[in-house]
This record gives sequence, structure tokens and C-alpha cells, in this order.
Amino acid sequence: MSKEITSREKDYSQWYNDLILKGELADYSAVKGCMVIKPYGYALWENMRDALDKMFKDTGHVNAYFPLLIPKSFLSKEAAHIEGFAKECAVVTHYRLKNDPNGGGVIVDPDAKLEEELIIRPTSETIIWNTYKDWIQSYRDLPLLINQWANIVRWEMRTRLFLRTTEFLWQEGHTAHATKDEAIEEAERMLNVYATFVEEFMAVPVIKGVKTANERFAGAVDTYCIEAMMQDGKALQAGTSHFLGQNFAKAFDVKFSNKENQQDYVWATSWGVTTRLIGALVMVHSDDQGLVLPPRIAPLQVVIVPIFKGDDQKATIDAKVKEIMKELKALGIRVKYDDNDNNRPGWKFAEYEMKGVPVRLAIGARDLEKNVIEIARRDTKEKRVVSLDGIAAYTENLLKEIQENMYNKAKVFRDENITPANSWDEFVKLLDEKSGFISAHWDGTSETEEAIKEKTKATIRCIPLNNQLENGVCILSGKPSVQRVLFARAY
Amino acid sequence: MSKEITSREKDYSQWYNDLILKGELADYSAVKGCMVIKPYGYALWENMRDALDKMFKDTGHVNAYFPLLIPKSFLSKEAAHIEGFAKECAVVTHYRLKNDPNGGGVIVDPDAKLEEELIIRPTSETIIWNTYKDWIQSYRDLPLLINQWANIVRWEMRTRLFLRTTEFLWQEGHTAHATKDEAIEEAERMLNVYATFVEEFMAVPVIKGVKTANERFAGAVDTYCIEAMMQDGKALQAGTSHFLGQNFAKAFDVKFSNKENQQDYVWATSWGVTTRLIGALVMVHSDDQGLVLPPRIAPLQVVIVPIFKGDDQKATIDAKVKEIMKELKALGIRVKYDDNDNNRPGWKFAEYEMKGVPVRLAIGARDLEKNVIEIARRDTKEKRVVSLDGIAAYTENLLKEIQENMYNKAKVFRDENITPANSWDEFVKLLDEKSGFISAHWDGTSETEEAIKEKTKATIRCIPLNNQLENGVCILSGKPSVQRVLFARAY
Repeated sequence: MSKEITSREKDYSQWYNDLILKGELADYSAVKGCMVIKPYGYALWENMRDALDKMFKDTGHVNAYFPLLIPKSFLSKEAAHIEGFAKECAVVTHYRLKNDPNGGGVIVDPDAKLEEELIIRPTSETIIWNTYKDWIQSYRDLPLLINQWANIVRWEMRTRLFLRTTEFLWQEGHTAHATKDEAIEEAERMLNVYATFVEEFMAVPVIKGVKTANERFAGAVDTYCIEAMMQDGKALQAGTSHFLGQNFAKAFDVKFSNKENQQDYVWATSWGVTTRLIGALVMVHSDDQGLVLPPRIAPLQVVIVPIFKGDDQKATIDAKVKEIMKELKALGIRVKYDDNDNNRPGWKFAEYEMKGVPVRLAIGARDLEKNVIEIARRDTKEKRVVSLDGIAAYTENLLKEIQENMYNKAKVFRDENITPANSWDEFVKLLDEKSGFISAHWDGTSETEEAIKEKTKATIRCIPLNNQLENGVCILSGKPSVQRVLFARAY
Repeated sequence: MSKEITSREKDYSQWYNDLILKGELADYSAVKGCMVIKPYGYALWENMRDALDKMFKDTGHVNAYFPLLIPKSFLSKEAAHIEGFAKECAVVTHYRLKNDPNGGGVIVDPDAKLEEELIIRPTSETIIWNTYKDWIQSYRDLPLLINQWANIVRWEMRTRLFLRTTEFLWQEGHTAHATKDEAIEEAERMLNVYATFVEEFMAVPVIKGVKTANERFAGAVDTYCIEAMMQDGKALQAGTSHFLGQNFAKAFDVKFSNKENQQDYVWATSWGVTTRLIGALVMVHSDDQGLVLPPRIAPLQVVIVPIFKGDDQKATIDAKVKEIMKELKALGIRVKYDDNDNNRPGWKFAEYEMKGVPVRLAIGARDLEKNVIEIARRDTKEKRVVSLDGIAAYTENLLKEIQENMYNKAKVFRDENITPANSWDEFVKLLDEKSGFISAHWDGTSETEEAIKEKTKATIRCIPLNNQLENGVCILSGKPSVQRVLFARAY
């Protein structure tokens, strides 16, 4: 496979696909819409998962596992839930294959038809709340703070690696509380956990906000979200946290006796992030040479490439690299020494650039004589020759600097591309001419929101939390508005 | 729910179910044959998974993720594979629901029928080898050492929590090699990894062996296994590692050019362990008071229970416990202080006994005055009053001792229950009167093996690795035999 990457300018969408495939994060599969997450991509997901999992546990959550399959009737128990999204899903109707009596492999056994069809979970609120019914009797059983790491299937017609696939991996938190306030507090807490994770680990700045009724999760009272800006100016919803009110408790009849010994329905939240985050990561940081991965979650943080002629030089370099590796590993740095002699140094440089490894160390025999080493950072492509003394500490600092720099760069880009629009003409012109988010007044109605979407494909990404109140008029309807909201075209 | 556990003697099978449900490891779900893994059970699985995952990575493997859904036609590509077991599986035939025009929820949309049905993976050899075809061209691409943590569905008619469920969690390794020897070496390596894990972490002794043709994985050339003995004397297959020869490479046309630039089919292995291991763990160690968990994988290793009257005593105890907790945590010990005042100490003692927490510390005001604490171990139920000085180190040692003692106890039981039989009468009598494994001569034919199974429900669990050769005659057919094999009734 050619290692050439289409440039962003030439074809942004192809650039993205090239990065995913040639950076070896994922591959297409034989099943339409499903991807294979390759080892390098999965190692990235593992790092993300482990960091998030620790944050969930530190905030009092535990993991559990609920069935993949959901009885069809469960999906229709919460009216808004099924109306909203749960219809495009994989339906299991039979439980056995048999040999084709006409030869030619196997066929579905018509005698093995299920009485009630089962749905592969498109999300697990229904099966989980059906279970919680048995687990919750009293306020002493609350709060119930459970998370699940799982695979999800939603039948998608147009798929894109990581961004929209029929099957994807995610985590879904499902919590149960005695009071409304406590549930809202939980939904906000987890939104903050997501924001912290995405900003501090992925180096992707986000805007915290609340969704409009139109964009709300089906079955939620309020959907909180974090929105990130991609390099093409489009928005990507990076995580959501839902305050579900008592909707699912009512649908599944989950009541508890409170401290006053009265029966009440339980209050709920749910919250999730998916492998889609990897798509965001790629689109925020990468360049025309390949992936650029933030050190905190990069599968490989440092690669060391030897440059030598002959076995003697190699042996001397090997000995020094062994020392360096030991020091770097002692600092907890994920490092690899690539002394594979099938490939030349130039090939390796390009390869690790493609893979987005944050720091590359290159060391030759002459460097060794001078007690120096070349250190190259992936984010700025800057190269320096530095002393071998204290190289481990130098590298550790550089990794921190890269992490910060990546965040700051993304934030400057994001902030430069949020533009206010004060009239419909201005709004349309901005959408055409300048990519990014638009901050504009909106009259607060779903009708106007839908009309804007129909005309421009831009949606309200969120009403930012702690939004400044400001009197104005809606860009489309001209009706009064009390605040600006963020519009954008989105992934 | 009553905390009473049915005794082993009264009803072994009910005892097992009581432990799983009342020990809060798992629960039944609304979907027939599928279980909910509860937080305590999942924490146990996480500890097992993390230990295994590290062992896989230390032996050079990486993780990846392949699709949940497999095109039906893939399953029939490897003839033995589909014949063997792949028929009892969940079949996805449709991809959309719609509102029932007659009201009453949702129905399957008949217009959304798939051209080719998809099967929820019952194992992933087929989808993975279909993918490997694109990943392997040359010997330089080999070996490919990939593992996957995933959920699996096999339609089971008779299910039991953890032991046999329609959906279960597992890991499946799928490796590709340039030579036959290398693949066999890998299959054996992973069998040893499993044996080490099960013995050292789960404290369950195992016998390593190879399966007979009858019991072999469908599509394998050889199936290696580890077999464990439960307290009722029945066998449980705790893990398998398969040498697949070139069967899947041929079925999916996966060739590579070797060092001599000749095309050859790739050699394969696959290997897996499942959440079934939790069933084994429970059945090997637990007693009539509840679970007994080995310290190395117990979600909670130590619980501390305060015994006090009034706030003053409580405050003094709290202060001391805070110190102890800090010391225990510094040693990496998973510890909980249960000062919940809704429950009395006696209730807590029974609760943690039920949950199998290896060590319980109980501390009262008078103990504190005397600078002592009561330490109780779950495995032997022995209690001691020991000095508070050095309590952390004492506890750490005790945890190690418990781990060893549990293994030794299980091994003595296992060894005492392997009995030789030298005639058919003796064999049948042993099966009726004494539970356990029987070591007996067998003529090596599938016919005899099947006849024995039909007559007695006992199967050949394995031909132990490095088995002693010994001339004899088959217990059933009287034909000559060169070695004894292990028979047992099995889970």
C-alpha cells in the first residue's frame, strides 16, 4: 500500500480515510458498515478506556455487564425512546442454522424461529432499567452508579471508519438516584469528567453545553454534551450525558421507598462516549504527513532509530540505547527501539511520522562520539541535537510540552473559528465562506431550528453552559432572543 | 433475599446457584439464557482479565477488535468447523423495526430483510481469517499474534450461570505463523500461560493434556486443554488452545511468500478462556457459608469492621483504621472499611463470609486499648488476635498464605480423587460410588470412546501431556492400549 496521504486541501474526506487506513488504526471488514480495529488503533482505545475507567471509578462508579440482546417489546416501553432512534437496528429472528438439503453450505433453520425477536442493543437503557427494577427497593439501594464497556449496533446506511459504523465500542453509564437534584448533579459531573478527559488526555478543547429539544437523546429530559471543532470547521459531538428524569423508571416501573417510607419513582442518568472519539482525535490534530497523537494516550510515545554502518557501530549504539530505554521506561514512558534492518532510517522516519509517534530519537555512531542525539517532535516537526546526558528527563519534559502545545494549538484554531453572526445574510455567508461555529441568536423554537437546518444543513450544536445572557433577535425569524447559541455543520 | 445457602450435601447444584446469586456475582436476565454480570462478579472478571492480558502482552501479543457479525456463508467455508458446532447461533435477518400499523409497539420491518443473513459470532476464526488474507503477503508479516476480548453468542438450550450461557465474555487469540513447528509451539505456549494463570491466580490445579479426536475443536488438528476438578468430582475444561494446521488458511486462501519466495499456506492457532472460569473458581473453593475467593483476584482482599458503642469509641477506632488502611493500600492491598451503621457487626461478618473476602479485620475499643486486632481468614475460618504493630505486613503475609493454602487444598482433593480403574466393572463402580477422575486404558478409537460415553456419560477429558507409556488393555474393548487416559463426567 502506498504511504502517500491525500492532502487536506485536496480532499479532506480522503485525507481522513488515508490516515485511518495507512496509520493502521482500522480497516474495512467483510460486513457492510462494520470495521476492524487494528492493533495500533486498539492500543489507542485501550489507553483512552483505561484513563476514562479510572476517572469513573474515582467518582464512585463500578462496572457490570448486561445482555447484548434485548427483547423487541422492551424498546417500545419508553415512547420517546423508540420514536427517537431505536428503529435502525439488527434483529435476531432465528437461533439455528442447518445444512442446506440442496448442498451449498448452511441455511437458516425455519423451525428455529424465536417467539419474540431480539434486538442487538443500540443502547441499553431498556434492558438495564428492566434489571434495576429487581435491584432497587429502598433508598438504601441508591444511588446505583454502574458503567458498562460494550459493543453496540445501530444500522447505519452511510458509514465512515470510527465516525459512524454499524458496530462500535463504547461505555454507557446508567445511574439511579433518590432525588432529581442528585441525578442532575450526576449528569453534570459526568459531563465534566468527559470534558476533562477529552481536553487533558486527547488535547482536544471542547465546549460544554446542553442540547436543544430537537437534538436531545430520545427519552431524556436534558442532554448535556461536549462539542469539538474539527480542522474543516465542522463540529463533532464528543460525548453526551443525559438527565433522564423518571422516564425510564416509569416505563419499567422502578419505584423505591424513600426515607419517609413513601413510594417514588427513581431518577436516572445515562452517559456515553464511543470509539468515535478516535475519529475526533485524528481530525483535530493530524497533518498531511500522517497522524499526530497526543503523548498521554499515544500507544508509543518515543521511538528510537539507530543510524549505523556495520556491526561494530550497531553494537556500540545498541549498548547506549539499552541504557536510554531503561531510563525512559523507569519514567513510565512507552518506548520502542526499531533496529529492524529490513528498513532504512528514512523509511522508518516516514513510518513513525505517519503513525503519529510524538517523539523520535535518532542516534548515529558520530553522535555517540560527541555524546549527543537527535530528537524530533512530531507536532511541530522541529528537530534538535541535544546532549545524551539527561536525555530521559529531556524527553519526558518534551512529551509534556507536546501535549500542551497540541491542546493550545487546537484551542487557538477553535477560538479563531467561532464567529458571531447578526443577520441571516451574515449567517449564510459565514457558512459558505468560513468554516467553523457560528454564534447567533435563535428564538428558542424547534420550528426555527428545523427551518435553519433545512436551509443550511447547520444545526444547533449546543447552548453553552453558563451562557452569557444577551438580548437580540433571532437570525431567521426576527423574534426576540435572550442568548446566542452555537451553530455548525456537524459529523 | 434470604442469605441462607443450600448445603453442598443437600443439593450441590442449588448450592452453586445460591452462591452465584447471593454472592452477587451474577443475576438472571429477561433474555433466556443470558445473564447479567453484577458489579462484584465483573470486578472479579476484571482482575482475571487484567492478569491474563498482561501475560498475553508479555508473550508478544497485541489486542484488536473484529466485527460481532459474520456473514452466514463464512461459517460453511471450513467444513469441519460448521459441522462441529457453529449451528446453534443467533441469526440476524433484518435491520429495521417500524411502528406497528395496528398500534401496540414496534414490528420488524419486512422491507428491511438482509440479502445474506448475519450470524452473531460463536467464535471468530472465520471473520478473522477472512481479514488476515489482506494482512499477510510475506513471511515478514508473520507471525501475527493477535488477541481479542469480546462477547460471544452460542444458542444454548440448557443454561447455567457462568457455566453455560447463551452470551458469554471471553478472549480469543488468533495467530498466524510461517511454519508448522512455530504454530505448535505457540499453541503449547498459550496452554502453559493458561495453566500458570489458573494455578497461580485462581489457585485451581489443572491437568494439561490433549483432546481426543471426538472432543477436538471443530476445525482444529489438535486441541490442547487444561482440566480442573470440581468439588463434586466432575471435570471442567478451563481453557483450550488449538493447533489449526493450515485448515483456515486453506478455507480463506491465506498464502504467504516464504524466505525462498515460494507461496505457502499460513499455519494457525487459536486459544480462549471464558467467564466460565468464574464458575470453576466458585465450585473449586467455596463452602456452605459462601464464596471463598483467592486473594490474588478477589475484588476485595481485606475488609475492616469496627465494633463500638457510641461516637467516642467510633472516633477512636476510625482514627486507627485510617492508619491501617493507609498502610495496607501502600502495599497494594484492596481494602474496605465498612463502618455503615445500618448493619450490625454480625450481619457484616456473614455478608463478607458470603462474598468470600479472604481476610476480615475486626477492631473494638477494648482491642485498641490492648493494641490488638482480630484477624479472621476466610479459607480456614481461623481467627486470631494479633498485635496492631506490624498488622499490615502480617496481613500481607496472610494473604499469600491463603493463596497457597487454597491451591494446596484443592490439589490434595484433586489428587485424592484420581483413581485408576483396570476393568470395566471397576470403572462403572468407581463412577457410581466415588466421584472424580478415572485413569484407565482405552484402545484409541472413537467408537470405544463413544460407547463409553453412551453407557456412562463419562468422557475422555484428556490424554495428559508427557503421559507415562504403559501397556495395558482397554477397559471396554479389551484391545491393547499403550497409555492410560483421564475419564470423568464433566460440566
